[in-house]
Amino acid sequence: MRIALDAMGGDFAPAEPVKGALLGAQANPDVEILLVGRRDAIQENLGQAAKTPANIRICEAADVIGMDEHPAIALKKKPDSSIARMFGLVVAGEADAAVSAGNTGAMVAGAAFFLKFIEGVKRPGIAINMPAGRGHCTVIDCGANVECKPIHLLQYAVMASEYNRLIVGNDNPRVGLLSVGSEEAKGNKLVKDTLPLMKELGLQFIGNVEGGDAYNGRCDVMVCDGFVGNVLLKVTEGVAESMMARLKSGVEKDTWTRLGMKLVKPAIDDMVAHLDYAEYGGAPLLGVQGVTIICHGRSDANAIKNALKAAIKSVQQNVTQKMAAALTASRQVWDRASGDLQ
Amino acid sequence: MRIALDAMGGDFAPAEPVKGALLGAQANPDVEILLVGRRDAIQENLGQAAKTPANIRICEAADVIGMDEHPAIALKKKPDSSIARMFGLVVAGEADAAVSAGNTGAMVAGAAFFLKFIEGVKRPGIAINMPAGRGHCTVIDCGANVECKPIHLLQYAVMASEYNRLIVGNDNPRVGLLSVGSEEAKGNKLVKDTLPLMKELGLQFIGNVEGGDAYNGRCDVMVCDGFVGNVLLKVTEGVAESMMARLKSGVEKDTWTRLGMKLVKPAIDDMVAHLDYAEYGGAPLLGVQGVTIICHGRSDANAIKNALKAAIKSVQQNVTQKMAAALTASRQVWDRASGDLQ
Repeated sequence: MRIALDAMGGDFAPAEPVKGALLGAQANPDVEILLVGRRDAIQENLGQAAKTPANIRICEAADVIGMDEHPAIALKKKPDSSIARMFGLVVAGEADAAVSAGNTGAMVAGAAFFLKFIEGVKRPGIAINMPAGRGHCTVIDCGANVECKPIHLLQYAVMASEYNRLIVGNDNPRVGLLSVGSEEAKGNKLVKDTLPLMKELGLQFIGNVEGGDAYNGRCDVMVCDGFVGNVLLKVTEGVAESMMARLKSGVEKDTWTRLGMKLVKPAIDDMVAHLDYAEYGGAPLLGVQGVTIICHGRSDANAIKNALKAAIKSVQQNVTQKMAAALTASRQVWDRASGDLQ
Repeated sequence: MRIALDAMGGDFAPAEPVKGALLGAQANPDVEILLVGRRDAIQENLGQAAKTPANIRICEAADVIGMDEHPAIALKKKPDSSIARMFGLVVAGEADAAVSAGNTGAMVAGAAFFLKFIEGVKRPGIAINMPAGRGHCTVIDCGANVECKPIHLLQYAVMASEYNRLIVGNDNPRVGLLSVGSEEAKGNKLVKDTLPLMKELGLQFIGNVEGGDAYNGRCDVMVCDGFVGNVLLKVTEGVAESMMARLKSGVEKDTWTRLGMKLVKPAIDDMVAHLDYAEYGGAPLLGVQGVTIICHGRSDANAIKNALKAAIKSVQQNVTQKMAAALTASRQVWDRASGDLQ
């Protein structure tokens, strides 16, 4: 198995992706990791390690797509960028997966442009595994598709349920449709139009759920429009940061609380790490033919290592093929929503 | 000034609303508080206080709308409910504001049914003051209108900017439009259609903002669709609860962290209280002719007292009239979006 890793993507590239590759190569000796990017920059960072493992290979890509570049324009202008090269390797059958902490939009656009969609899929969606109680809730879509129709949500539900089953490990994932209340009558037009067909997909559909249910273990999969999913994600980060900032300023007030903070620090660190979805192997883009994992821009070596692990597991489990089979099995249902597409 | 308070609304009614009324009456001796609900239940709870202040009066309402009842149906079936009676008092000029921790949908439907809309307003919106850095960010709409058109968002921006100026106290509030990125090209159709007109409203509009910007002090007013705003609110609660649950289970692990937790508890309590928007005077429904404040169902006496304070300040500051004037001044702009309405 070969996994292509974007050495140039992310806020701390190439140092952290290269370190992550070294960790991943060590943990998975049977997997070859293709570090895609500028050979000299990668070599320089690899050189700091005692010796480069035999299962790391550099694949030259002279160009880099910046974090703030326009995805489609950058991909067109930079055919030799690390992201374009990664997908080229996947298309050529030289890599089984593509992993990057770079420009999210360019990863989505690149996957859509270079890889074919799974048979029948209208739009790929970004899935993120949020910490929920003792497990994880797979939230889809987190921003690939900000203008959803019912058919998109139905396909997301089928794919994310399969992903959650195979990768997160829930036998029969409970799927919820994100709304403003659990009652059937609650929701906007998109939710109301989607709900009846969602019931027929053959999933363990538990009906409408609310924003907080992504964190309390009520559902294993949460399906939503990409605009709403992106807000959910950014609010999660914002609330966690706001709480920590407030706690830190409160603790500074006197000696006893400062001492207490030192004692309680392991639990606080655990609380913060628990909510950091970057710890859980990045965000897979579901719906394309080829495993594609998008990492948070601020990913460190450990987050990259976890993303490589998720990519390897996805390839081993044939996630793409099994999602395709699940979509075929439920086609009669989601196809009935096609009429909504203009 | 007279404020009508729903004695029967909320998870802890009538005990907490009655206690809240006593606190509010004491803090505001010039204001009369009208406790609306079942006389015997109110009297029983008032009786526990040493003596009822002269500025508390009971207004009998024999019926109660339950937390889970269908708003419109319940309002129709129960003309003698505490919520219907409160709005009756406002319409008759016997109360200047209505405050309730009861059924949110019934409060929105009741206000829309009994009170007139401010001239030109198409749909009222729920505003919530989220803790943001050292101040507060007024997020609108948090769930009154889950199917927004550009004109709704434009009117929300004008009203919430005025509310934030008069009640939160920012001279010239920075208004942001919630999207999936700060760049102008980012967003769904609603955001893209709204943005150009938002620039012309004469507000201090800072462009698109992201979900996390409700908490970091980047903007003073955040405008969004009621579906998205409701998700934002529920996610905020969910993340905070999830973090606290994780912290508590982490702290149980050993004696030293348990001791540390005791020392750091004031700072933790402060962190939790900081994020509890119920502390900040409930959620005003903006766009109706008459001050209407909706409190969280789990409001305690202190939250009710704060909501009464916000209601009093809103009446004193003539918020409704000033919002109406601001809407008139910007009518040329938001009226151009009327064509979108079906």
